Amino acid sequence: MIIVVSSKSKDEELKGLFDYIESHNVQIKSTIGKTHTILGLVGDTVKIDMDAINTFPIVESVKRVQEPYKLVNRKFHELDTIVDVGGYKIGGGHFQVIAGPCSVESHDQILEIARGVKASNVGILRGGAFKPRSSPYAFQGLEGTGLELLSEAKAITGMPLVSEVMSADDIPLFADVDLIQVGARNMQNFRLLKELGKIKKPILLKRGLANTIEEWLMSAEYIMAGGNENVILCERGIRTFETATRNTLDVSAIPVIKKMSHLPIVVDPSHSAGMSHLVEPLSLAAIAAGADGLIIEVHNNPQKALCDGAQSLTIPQFKVINEKIEKLVAFMKTI
Amino acid sequence: MIIVVSSKSKDEELKGLFDYIESHNVQIKSTIGKTHTILGLVGDTVKIDMDAINTFPIVESVKRVQEPYKLVNRKFHELDTIVDVGGYKIGGGHFQVIAGPCSVESHDQILEIARGVKASNVGILRGGAFKPRSSPYAFQGLEGTGLELLSEAKAITGMPLVSEVMSADDIPLFADVDLIQVGARNMQNFRLLKELGKIKKPILLKRGLANTIEEWLMSAEYIMAGGNENVILCERGIRTFETATRNTLDVSAIPVIKKMSHLPIVVDPSHSAGMSHLVEPLSLAAIAAGADGLIIEVHNNPQKALCDGAQSLTIPQFKVINEKIEKLVAFMKTI
Amino acid sequence: MIIVVSSKSKDEELKGLFDYIESHNVQIKSTIGKTHTILGLVGDTVKIDMDAINTFPIVESVKRVQEPYKLVNRKFHELDTIVDVGGYKIGGGHFQVIAGPCSVESHDQILEIARGVKASNVGILRGGAFKPRSSPYAFQGLEGTGLELLSEAKAITGMPLVSEVMSADDIPLFADVDLIQVGARNMQNFRLLKELGKIKKPILLKRGLANTIEEWLMSAEYIMAGGNENVILCERGIRTFETATRNTLDVSAIPVIKKMSHLPIVVDPSHSAGMSHLVEPLSLAAIAAGADGLIIEVHNNPQKALCDGAQSLTIPQFKVINEKIEKLVAFMKTI
Amino acid sequence: MIIVVSSKSKDEELKGLFDYIESHNVQIKSTIGKTHTILGLVGDTVKIDMDAINTFPIVESVKRVQEPYKLVNRKFHELDTIVDVGGYKIGGGHFQVIAGPCSVESHDQILEIARGVKASNVGILRGGAFKPRSSPYAFQGLEGTGLELLSEAKAITGMPLVSEVMSADDIPLFADVDLIQVGARNMQNFRLLKELGKIKKPILLKRGLANTIEEWLMSAEYIMAGGNENVILCERGIRTFETATRNTLDVSAIPVIKKMSHLPIVVDPSHSAGMSHLVEPLSLAAIAAGADGLIIEVHNNPQKALCDGAQSLTIPQFKVINEKIEKLVAFMKTI
Repeated sequence: MIIVVSSKSKDEELKGLFDYIESHNVQIKSTIGKTHTILGLVGDTVKIDMDAINTFPIVESVKRVQEPYKLVNRKFHELDTIVDVGGYKIGGGHFQVIAGPCSVESHDQILEIARGVKASNVGILRGGAFKPRSSPYAFQGLEGTGLELLSEAKAITGMPLVSEVMSADDIPLFADVDLIQVGARNMQNFRLLKELGKIKKPILLKRGLANTIEEWLMSAEYIMAGGNENVILCERGIRTFETATRNTLDVSAIPVIKKMSHLPIVVDPSHSAGMSHLVEPLSLAAIAAGADGLIIEVHNNPQKALCDGAQSLTIPQFKVINEKIEKLVAFMKTI
Repeated sequence: MIIVVSSKSKDEELKGLFDYIESHNVQIKSTIGKTHTILGLVGDTVKIDMDAINTFPIVESVKRVQEPYKLVNRKFHELDTIVDVGGYKIGGGHFQVIAGPCSVESHDQILEIARGVKASNVGILRGGAFKPRSSPYAFQGLEGTGLELLSEAKAITGMPLVSEVMSADDIPLFADVDLIQVGARNMQNFRLLKELGKIKKPILLKRGLANTIEEWLMSAEYIMAGGNENVILCERGIRTFETATRNTLDVSAIPVIKKMSHLPIVVDPSHSAGMSHLVEPLSLAAIAAGADGLIIEVHNNPQKALCDGAQSLTIPQFKVINEKIEKLVAFMKTI
Repeated sequence: MIIVVSSKSKDEELKGLFDYIESHNVQIKSTIGKTHTILGLVGDTVKIDMDAINTFPIVESVKRVQEPYKLVNRKFHELDTIVDVGGYKIGGGHFQVIAGPCSVESHDQILEIARGVKASNVGILRGGAFKPRSSPYAFQGLEGTGLELLSEAKAITGMPLVSEVMSADDIPLFADVDLIQVGARNMQNFRLLKELGKIKKPILLKRGLANTIEEWLMSAEYIMAGGNENVILCERGIRTFETATRNTLDVSAIPVIKKMSHLPIVVDPSHSAGMSHLVEPLSLAAIAAGADGLIIEVHNNPQKALCDGAQSLTIPQFKVINEKIEKLVAFMKTI
Repeated sequence: MIIVVSSKSKDEELKGLFDYIESHNVQIKSTIGKTHTILGLVGDTVKIDMDAINTFPIVESVKRVQEPYKLVNRKFHELDTIVDVGGYKIGGGHFQVIAGPCSVESHDQILEIARGVKASNVGILRGGAFKPRSSPYAFQGLEGTGLELLSEAKAITGMPLVSEVMSADDIPLFADVDLIQVGARNMQNFRLLKELGKIKKPILLKRGLANTIEEWLMSAEYIMAGGNENVILCERGIRTFETATRNTLDVSAIPVIKKMSHLPIVVDPSHSAGMSHLVEPLSLAAIAAGADGLIIEVHNNPQKALCDGAQSLTIPQFKVINEKIEKLVAFMKTI
């Protein structure tokens, strides 16, 4: 940690700050300049609160030198983490497409979609049972029944499942789900993160609409600190001033995450764009930038979808795009 | 609802769209232009999903004419809502300052602060027991014990309490809390909102870091739709590209909310700014713009605060600022 | 300047960096930690390029200790700058309202508005002659003729003038203008800033739509570095994700600027909001936060205004609001 | 254009609005609902000012049905525009890499880089002579001398040139430049755009840091409306809250532009990222998303670059990346 103080600071002011710092068993090395003095702190500074330092009036700025996350940090874990989702590996060179409807609507619907995407060689099925909707008057998902319909589809097709959890209370209902999704709006629902840290099941952690990459990694750290090492990150677009797309896919997040962390990262082109015609170019861009997977919305009848129809592909549209995805994934290994 | 379709649309394409719309018992009136046809929908369009309309390829754009919220809408409830917090009224011309520490740390700490702010004529005490922290390694609050310490402070000083809830499970612990706060990160924790709709206690709903005013009102609608009409909105700064302040206080939100809704709105200048020297100017700006109250962080020893010390005022600093606040509130009624 | 390097750096890597730094006549003081080494640079680091430092692979981060601006910096100029605009002082406790139409349209229009606002005790008249419009098909202003009409209004009413310049070529046409405005879109038109640095006339520098406060001060530094010390800053709203208002007034910028710089700052509530009914609350908020003035759009017939009618006040509306402004300005001096 | 008015509007209020609209030779078709009346305007509404409509108190909202741009609109120009830059085609399936230093520094520097990138099969050379720098104390470019050095490099290598213009006055100096760049900060320097519309030379129009895609297209419309049809758009990252990257590359802008406009679009991965290690993944992502070209910063000695060294590739680094670029461009034509 580095602290910059004014060179005009009086001795007693400095003493107060030094006492505070040294009470944390940390050494101080000063570099005195003309206008500023730089204090370099040597030792374990994790427990020193930057905010507390900032309250000393002589302090002009404080800067952490070490990242605030450890378990997700590539510096302490060089090899890529590979997460196994019902037999399908993600990360460390393993790429998967996850596909399915925004929300599960009926036995026939989820089965038709599952079979449709499986015919395109897709291993993992997604489907929403608990739906976070900005309006209390919108369809909120089939909830427990939705999870049962997913289980039936799994029993019939053998496909592992991805579904979103909205509350720690519901975790027991997810016994048959292979990858539990934390939605963007819950990225900083710390209570939920803590509970997910106590189970061993893989977690798909979506980035919040306006969260920095560091905050996202800190949320992954919450899960890992609880003991669950099976975390997959999911970039799904951030909120900006642009209105031509629902969100702005932050494609740079892929290589940035790869450098900072060992965790796999997948991309959700459907929510990023909000429009089905953008799913193909954004999927291909994500692969070219190094993503470990994609999660794509597919519906058997988008015009009758109970949510987010505008961003869903039909099964035949998905088939065409998925062939390009497979080709590009294979090609990227050759360059 | 207004739908714009291309004038080149074929009859069978239009028929598909018309069938879909008319299945909702809504009438269509068309205005045919040279390049576009405008469809005006007459009737109750609340259940028509804009996304579903957008999936029809001939549709160029869809626009709601009515606001998606009803219970919070001033159009259907002209008079200002007044919320009573343990005997202190907020809204409809009633202004309150809420003050206290970011987090409750000990019996002596909360009592010293409570007495300090009460001496400045402040009625309502805030204090965090459950703390949403971006790092799993940071102080997470005293939780249940924190709420007990708050209860003691209430018993001694008679001040009603404000404290943040992070999970629906914890609501029973808040029996002694008079105004339950929903933090910015939980603004779209819809499960929590639904549970808070089932109780009658006043709710302080903070705006999310990157949420629009409409989304914020929709979250208030969730609580009201559940049956709880005692909602106070709290603007606490939004996330922008500016780094000189922790967040950007959206002061315009105050008059915008006043026009769109009948609910009271208070401002949190401490979190907006992130720096104690900005609390005074932002508090005064909020009052001048029409806010119904302020929620301000005060600590007896900011340098030893377990969280957010940099934005906390000392008790003497608060005294000075609160005198200005009182004077400006009184003055604003005269112009 | 502080440079953080990895403790694993090899001697020859460090030597390359040290040679580069020392070639700028700057001393290095190292603080060696377990994982990182902190290099504190002592001496005049203004000419050391942070980007160049960042190119050394061993460098993890670089941080400036001193602000990159000098002439606008309050640290080197403690007293408030007061700018004289045709006999009206702005800054250092002097507050002015500037009012007038978005664009000058005719002799009668500008004269009617000038007289109208002067009757409300306003000293300075604004009026656009060169208009930056996002569409090439929109009204672009009366240009030279507009400036002539402004001159006539000045001759008749005695009011000093504010008008926007869009190109350095046009500066000679502004002989009769007392305060030359640089619009938000030209805040980083560095060629224009340099030319305005060569004249002595006061400059009103609007903040860019997505510029940080530091970048804004650097643009003011451009003008001052050229020799023109008469700069007034103007906050006019920044671009965020919120769509209920045209822009988001960054009211915090007022006290932040007051701390960082000695230059006066005025607020444009008309462009911030984009809606006339928000002008009053935003004007009052700006005053309460410490602004040195306001620039408000007033039109004799907003429905027939050739630009930005929706944010213009009528002359009678302005009269009512300006009375409140005057009262609040007077009151703020008493608390 | 669609106007929504309150159903409570009185006849005389409606008359005022109707008179205003009909004075523009436009027909009105009304759809009367329970709470709102929808007015559909039929005819040429380009000259009706939405702001003026909004000033009528009965108006609740106004919406344009037609895009505000014509010449850049794909609806009126179905085929891709192909721009010829000194014999190298961009657009309509033609892909080019443009490479070179941030700024021209000396004869030897620009020649070494030109030869280096040409050896990698790159056709077009970039180099800055006029540099927009946020600090007046930073290197501002060699200006006219820089352009002369570029001309020498062109004479020797035969490579066409790209360089940025900062003021309309300087256009005559760009006689030897084949593609004139308008920087992000000048995207809405409308005076400059108008002057560039009068010449026939290709223009590379960078997107502003906080400009929407629609505003960007309107700036292209300015150039085309002046008579210059040779416009290439350049996405270079937008400003968001994320700080891990200098800007956020908006990769979705590529397919969005392809749908809305016939103009070619290239991507600048160097400025988007601000870090050289991100240039490769962002370049590949841009190609996969459908970009027509890339503009990449390359320097013979980034550590001694006079600007933006941290984002420049060395010549050998560029060679490696460009081989991948060529392979991916070829591959994308096959899927």
